[in-house]
Amino acid sequence: MFKKILIANRGEIAMRILRSCKEMGIKTVAVYSTADKDSLHVRFADEAVCIGPAASKDSYLKIPNIISAAEITNADAIHPGYGFLSENANFSRICAKNGIKFIGASPEQIEKMGDKATAKKTMKEAGIPCVPGSDGLIDSYEDAVKIAEKTGYPVMIKATAGGGGKGMRAVWKPEDLKEMWDSAIQEAVAAFGNGGMYMEKLIEEPRHIEIQIAGDQYGKACHLSERDCSIQRRNQKLTEETPSPFMTDELRKRMGDAAVKAAEYIAYEGVGTIEFLVDKNRDFYFMEMNTRIQVEHPITEQVIDYDLIREQIMLASGSPISGVNHFPKLHSIECRINAEDPYNDFRPSPGKITELNIPGGHGIRVDTHVYSGYTIPSNYDSMIAKLIATAQTRDEAIAKMRRALDEFYVEGIKTTIPFHRQLMDNKDYLAGNYTTKFMEDFVIDKNFDNN
Amino acid sequence: MFKKILIANRGEIAMRILRSCKEMGIKTVAVYSTADKDSLHVRFADEAVCIGPAASKDSYLKIPNIISAAEITNADAIHPGYGFLSENANFSRICAKNGIKFIGASPEQIEKMGDKATAKKTMKEAGIPCVPGSDGLIDSYEDAVKIAEKTGYPVMIKATAGGGGKGMRAVWKPEDLKEMWDSAIQEAVAAFGNGGMYMEKLIEEPRHIEIQIAGDQYGKACHLSERDCSIQRRNQKLTEETPSPFMTDELRKRMGDAAVKAAEYIAYEGVGTIEFLVDKNRDFYFMEMNTRIQVEHPITEQVIDYDLIREQIMLASGSPISGVNHFPKLHSIECRINAEDPYNDFRPSPGKITELNIPGGHGIRVDTHVYSGYTIPSNYDSMIAKLIATAQTRDEAIAKMRRALDEFYVEGIKTTIPFHRQLMDNKDYLAGNYTTKFMEDFVIDKNFDNN
Repeated sequence: MFKKILIANRGEIAMRILRSCKEMGIKTVAVYSTADKDSLHVRFADEAVCIGPAASKDSYLKIPNIISAAEITNADAIHPGYGFLSENANFSRICAKNGIKFIGASPEQIEKMGDKATAKKTMKEAGIPCVPGSDGLIDSYEDAVKIAEKTGYPVMIKATAGGGGKGMRAVWKPEDLKEMWDSAIQEAVAAFGNGGMYMEKLIEEPRHIEIQIAGDQYGKACHLSERDCSIQRRNQKLTEETPSPFMTDELRKRMGDAAVKAAEYIAYEGVGTIEFLVDKNRDFYFMEMNTRIQVEHPITEQVIDYDLIREQIMLASGSPISGVNHFPKLHSIECRINAEDPYNDFRPSPGKITELNIPGGHGIRVDTHVYSGYTIPSNYDSMIAKLIATAQTRDEAIAKMRRALDEFYVEGIKTTIPFHRQLMDNKDYLAGNYTTKFMEDFVIDKNFDNN
Repeated sequence: MFKKILIANRGEIAMRILRSCKEMGIKTVAVYSTADKDSLHVRFADEAVCIGPAASKDSYLKIPNIISAAEITNADAIHPGYGFLSENANFSRICAKNGIKFIGASPEQIEKMGDKATAKKTMKEAGIPCVPGSDGLIDSYEDAVKIAEKTGYPVMIKATAGGGGKGMRAVWKPEDLKEMWDSAIQEAVAAFGNGGMYMEKLIEEPRHIEIQIAGDQYGKACHLSERDCSIQRRNQKLTEETPSPFMTDELRKRMGDAAVKAAEYIAYEGVGTIEFLVDKNRDFYFMEMNTRIQVEHPITEQVIDYDLIREQIMLASGSPISGVNHFPKLHSIECRINAEDPYNDFRPSPGKITELNIPGGHGIRVDTHVYSGYTIPSNYDSMIAKLIATAQTRDEAIAKMRRALDEFYVEGIKTTIPFHRQLMDNKDYLAGNYTTKFMEDFVIDKNFDNN
């Protein structure tokens, strides 16, 4: 087992990883930008190394600084968390070259699955259902026109290096293609330095349902059931739940089997997620694979009594998996509490938290890195906490989430708490009747009294 | 189902009850003394009624004030929590007379089990093993001498109205009996207004293991396995765990069967706890029954995915139980975080909390009523939070508790956090090798660096 793990991340996920390391008796090294010097992950790690200024490209994305920090502190493994360098094949390769275990997929697996066009091709070979569309990257706008005609409108154009909704466009009519094509490329180049595009048929009324998988170094994989992440705004997940209210035992078996088949086809090592789109007929299509831990992993942990970070570390150290699939025994919902103003188009609201009351009690889990007096920097992701409610049934989990949101006070900044509180009263949400289009029709009540 | 429940309590248990009520869609009424006006239970209840000044006898124990509050607010039930009026048969009777459902045992059951001497007699009749000793109350000191001789020293003298270690004395030699007898009676009269005494053989190297039970209005009961509460200081529990490290499947079956038999013998209604002493040969003896929810109930909830307060309310409203016993699927430990100075003989340390960081994340539950800026009144129990760690195994739960204690910061007052942190490193505790005498030999390291 590893003796010391460097956590190449910040915020709640740095705390999350640190906690599992501590519980496993593994020493921890935090890295931080100057903007994060007062973060809890810095305070609670055994060692902490400043790796640069606030801008991510100069700190959390700066590979030489992170490798140096690992070498100085004699860390024998690096956990990348999510975002930042977690799906960077080059980083994974450099870690290996420096004799440091990268806790995640191999460079080859990241390359195969991180590039969305290649991933789709690989999954087709493995016999996993994929959305019809281009066969990999599209060479030119002229080809894009032909493929869109062949696939049939509406279509989605997507940046191969994309993520978080960037470099992605829905095109409903041929006359819109040119403009969308150009702006998507422009956005992808700006965000990822890579303008490669592919195209897919747009699935109408789709649900985003993903399967959590785990694979060991011996080619064996298992699944840990699904998470429904359909409640999204501009392709950013807002809340997730498991089981999916749309799930059936039969569909779970089909999707789970496909996910395990996909993982074993590429001999996937570590924990990962296969994201599917599910249409109203319960046909499902491979969307992408995340070769890392997901933000929403806690709801899976809550319903199957599992520690996914521990598992990830165990797998990276060479532990085999039992190969048994895991099924939800409870119902769990996560609300992402972001420092954003839901009454003003979810505009970021960084600043100082002047007062804080975090809910607790039966069935409530909170993962956060903030505290009363903490100042949220404007440089990073706006998520300040994950609020997770778990109960015997979906109705009970929603009731629990409602009372926990009522108890959650954050003063000094705006948060998404009032949005979530309204969502928990929404008729369609309560009925489990939602698709990825849900937020397009959701009207927030600005007169809503949260507390 | 009840429409509105008045919570006749304060602190974390008032919050605990309030949360389950909210989740069940039941309106809540908080009552509070003037000392508690800034408490969270007052803030989060639908209505709140001041019932008197700080002294408990003038507020939380003042039956007419509580009944008035229930009548004014039109509450149809009262939840008494633990302590205060929770085992007061007279209060239960007055509630009934006023058409308000008392969420707990009937007056007859409280009388039968609340009086310890009568309880023991009843349990003997039911065929439950009891510690040898007096047959009910002892009439005089002369009788006490005779019974002690017959039972054999060492013996325990106990106040029939006792609780929290008050009015209780261990007597190791005949020459000490007189002094102990007099001082116990004096203490019992002062604390409970009742000097009635009984006597039991003192079980050496005993473990305090209790069985959680639930009974419905139709005479049926089930058990929810055990809690080991042997880590006590002056008969006050400090930390509890389930399963007990001393438990075997065979012993759990015997103790569980006895507890269900005891509950069904008195047709017990509601949730309750049968406390047993278990000796080194795994023989067990009925100690007492608590006809109410216990402080340490959350560890049971964590290992069997259950909400005991919800169950209590359901049973009070006439729901039947399934009659199936419940067994621990995980391991859970609770540390009682008290505003006491463990470096100064656990002296109470009330005052203002100036800074607070409550731990969270995977497997951690915190039940508390305090927040940063809250002032702990000196009038009540010193418990400020219950920290509960749950994991697959005992070792993992201890590791989790350790890291959660490291994250738990309370500034402005002294707390028992450093004691618990040291306990989690104690060899005998780690080996599960402890009895109710554990704390007599525990030496706290005053140079221990908690953070």
